[in-house]
Amino acid sequence: MKIKPGDQVLIISPDNKTYLVTVAEGKSMGTHKGELPIGDAIGKSYGESIYSNLEHPFLLMEPTLEDKMMKVKRHTQIIYPKDAALIVLKTGLQSGMRVIECGTGSGSLTMALANAVAPGGMVYTYDAREKHLENAKINIENAGYSENVEFKLGSAQDGFDQEEVDAVVLDLPSPWDGIASAAKALRGGGRIASLSPTYNQVERCVENLEEHGFVYIETLELLLRYIQVSAGKTRPVDRMVSHTGFLTFARRVLSAEEK
Amino acid sequence: MKIKPGDQVLIISPDNKTYLVTVAEGKSMGTHKGELPIGDAIGKSYGESIYSNLEHPFLLMEPTLEDKMMKVKRHTQIIYPKDAALIVLKTGLQSGMRVIECGTGSGSLTMALANAVAPGGMVYTYDAREKHLENAKINIENAGYSENVEFKLGSAQDGFDQEEVDAVVLDLPSPWDGIASAAKALRGGGRIASLSPTYNQVERCVENLEEHGFVYIETLELLLRYIQVSAGKTRPVDRMVSHTGFLTFARRVLSAEEK
Amino acid sequence: MKIKPGDQVLIISPDNKTYLVTVAEGKSMGTHKGELPIGDAIGKSYGESIYSNLEHPFLLMEPTLEDKMMKVKRHTQIIYPKDAALIVLKTGLQSGMRVIECGTGSGSLTMALANAVAPGGMVYTYDAREKHLENAKINIENAGYSENVEFKLGSAQDGFDQEEVDAVVLDLPSPWDGIASAAKALRGGGRIASLSPTYNQVERCVENLEEHGFVYIETLELLLRYIQVSAGKTRPVDRMVSHTGFLTFARRVLSAEEK
Amino acid sequence: MKIKPGDQVLIISPDNKTYLVTVAEGKSMGTHKGELPIGDAIGKSYGESIYSNLEHPFLLMEPTLEDKMMKVKRHTQIIYPKDAALIVLKTGLQSGMRVIECGTGSGSLTMALANAVAPGGMVYTYDAREKHLENAKINIENAGYSENVEFKLGSAQDGFDQEEVDAVVLDLPSPWDGIASAAKALRGGGRIASLSPTYNQVERCVENLEEHGFVYIETLELLLRYIQVSAGKTRPVDRMVSHTGFLTFARRVLSAEEK
Repeated sequence: MKIKPGDQVLIISPDNKTYLVTVAEGKSMGTHKGELPIGDAIGKSYGESIYSNLEHPFLLMEPTLEDKMMKVKRHTQIIYPKDAALIVLKTGLQSGMRVIECGTGSGSLTMALANAVAPGGMVYTYDAREKHLENAKINIENAGYSENVEFKLGSAQDGFDQEEVDAVVLDLPSPWDGIASAAKALRGGGRIASLSPTYNQVERCVENLEEHGFVYIETLELLLRYIQVSAGKTRPVDRMVSHTGFLTFARRVLSAEEK
Repeated sequence: MKIKPGDQVLIISPDNKTYLVTVAEGKSMGTHKGELPIGDAIGKSYGESIYSNLEHPFLLMEPTLEDKMMKVKRHTQIIYPKDAALIVLKTGLQSGMRVIECGTGSGSLTMALANAVAPGGMVYTYDAREKHLENAKINIENAGYSENVEFKLGSAQDGFDQEEVDAVVLDLPSPWDGIASAAKALRGGGRIASLSPTYNQVERCVENLEEHGFVYIETLELLLRYIQVSAGKTRPVDRMVSHTGFLTFARRVLSAEEK
Repeated sequence: MKIKPGDQVLIISPDNKTYLVTVAEGKSMGTHKGELPIGDAIGKSYGESIYSNLEHPFLLMEPTLEDKMMKVKRHTQIIYPKDAALIVLKTGLQSGMRVIECGTGSGSLTMALANAVAPGGMVYTYDAREKHLENAKINIENAGYSENVEFKLGSAQDGFDQEEVDAVVLDLPSPWDGIASAAKALRGGGRIASLSPTYNQVERCVENLEEHGFVYIETLELLLRYIQVSAGKTRPVDRMVSHTGFLTFARRVLSAEEK
Repeated sequence: MKIKPGDQVLIISPDNKTYLVTVAEGKSMGTHKGELPIGDAIGKSYGESIYSNLEHPFLLMEPTLEDKMMKVKRHTQIIYPKDAALIVLKTGLQSGMRVIECGTGSGSLTMALANAVAPGGMVYTYDAREKHLENAKINIENAGYSENVEFKLGSAQDGFDQEEVDAVVLDLPSPWDGIASAAKALRGGGRIASLSPTYNQVERCVENLEEHGFVYIETLELLLRYIQVSAGKTRPVDRMVSHTGFLTFARRVLSAEEK
């Protein structure tokens, strides 16, 4: 598997700086370690290096989903990989499924959802602000997930165009605005996930989920702590991200008249 | 999408107990709320209920990956969903990829890997104990992932039969035993993940990864805290799982002679 | 320093069970390792052992503040030592100071406050329920802190009898009920601390503190994780207490007319 | 209680910057809000304000132990108040006790120990580097704890001059160097505490404690998370200190020949 023009490559400098770059013939990039001829990557394998004009080696790595998520062009707070990963797992996403995301933002969570439902599945992602959609579209395209994402301009209260979807993910300042619409769009047994930074949002969101008959409601938070490992001196790092958001999950029950 | 014989269904009792059951004509199950005719689920939709002979409703839900992982028949400590989810994301798995798992255990992580690479991909899962493989095989089959899993009897030191795989995941008491074999099996830029409960394992594992030229080495732990949400009384729960394991990630570089 | 009748002693069994016992001539106690003649402790030093009739050694240890706090007879949820310790430090308590506690409960926090202001200082501890006060009185007396504690039957809204105290500590379901009274009782620069399990209580408490002109308001939580240490197998323990309470601290400013 | 020359005062600016200042007649301090006449504090009460030449009010607050600890002149990493508070509580310190500290550093933990044993008690604090002792001496004197602290130049291996002390606290890169000396200096039932950043130190320290017959050995870590409280928007803060150190506690048993 050789690198070819158009591929997104993660480049790691000798001092562990990382760059996510789309490879093109003749392309070049200025770095603190000299000018780097990106075009040299063409025909190389991942795990090999290219060299700056100052002879510094830069590793060529295949970007993972995490790399792509963390390197998006941001207009908004991005969703952290730890949270996105658990959302994907707890909503039970798999290839072929259909999922609605409301609150596209910069598209980082969109990528994780698209990665989970590809091939054959679809993410319908809604955002009320055209500016966000434009930016996310470019991010998603660069990351190679365009085939599995449909962008929709609109807000949660206006309802979603899809029916019988497998899951709905809300990333909204007022998640309760999306719950009635989500209940309509979800098939029986479908999963909903919501992400919010404050406990006040969580409280109102859960109340609303209960009113709409959702069951198996859970709220949680994930803390990620890095460990600094070196022989004889292993310890947790000094500082960490303390809070990204609370995650709420629930499942859709069919009402009497729907059965 | 109606439930049919052979489907795995998550059944939720009126008091929130959950059962993962394979549906069959005429099948019945004793519960603390009366005898439950599982066969009645046939032809129903997820989100509907069936009733015990004491008239208690039991919800029929589609099991998510998490439900399947948590309900495996265990011979060993299982991998928690939070950790499995992050392993899948950080190893960059997607449909069509090939991944080696060493330490099949009860097969819960195997499911998460299979779910990520399906369709078209393959998990090659190794365990040195036939008893574990037998049990995991049944768990994987029940969960519907057999098509994407190959079971291999063998230990890490003996090497893996595959080449140019996208990722290797080690769940071993001595992860360092698997690193040389992993280095051989991984393609350039391929990812390795290792899961260990103790600091000592992590320290020796990281040392070994460095010796084998792996880069971008990270070790971390994930803490999951549930929040008890109710109007006017929202708070973290009293007790939590404090530690499941440390996760170490790294990437494979090609040596001079491999390029 | 020899043990004498009337001393409270922490007794540690061969299998690490602990008992907090008041020593008396001829006293004896049944244990799972035989009958233990407590009277034998008289004349011994801390760090020595006494023996059950089955010849098992039981260590005699001087109880620390923590031992005393954890072994109180409880009518209510006790305050954890980690929280009590930080309350003492952040309210700046020292020998000779005067502090009001509202919500005596079982008296475990009362002990920590008394220990901090002794000798020469005083804890005025209020509880609206006589039953709590009775129980706490016995706990405090057993722990040897009676000289520095005054018990008061009454609730926060009725106001406190003291003026110009150095600190007020609230452990109330409705901490806001005590803030006006606390403001009256505190001298300029005096500290207030409040302990509550829910976010909702914290939010309303902080609002109320702001209304009463308190400054330097901080809210925090402390998580304590035990580490299981053994050569080559060191790791965090499996389970932990996830939440005891949120702690809020603030300081009293003098209003224009008070200056 | 009026402020007088020589008092240490915590001054809070209108934008919540804090300064720990010793008051003196005619003294003045430059701030980002204008020149502040510190001498004006004389005769005022805590909780009142003084004014800069630009008419900005600065609050006069009585410094707590925490303020003093956090504002020391540092030559070394300081001990955090959360850790110091728990060390004081778990070593069972109270007025009149005698405690050895080995590793004076900047003296912040020394203050917490002195505050706990005053009046009538004594902290014997050892450091192998004269420079640290000099700096700590000034910090302790400014904080008003000189009466309860004795400074000793010397390292742990050389032994301590005291006998029958109530507690020993080690803050050393090689805590095991101090354990034999601590065992000698402690009375039966006396407590030892050790603070170390790495798990490797902890592992060797605990092994050594066991070899010296210490019992009731516990290791733990404390995580402090601030909560950002505001009406309708309450949530944990974004970032936190992830690790300060592991704390190990144990108690001294008398050997056969000592009894």
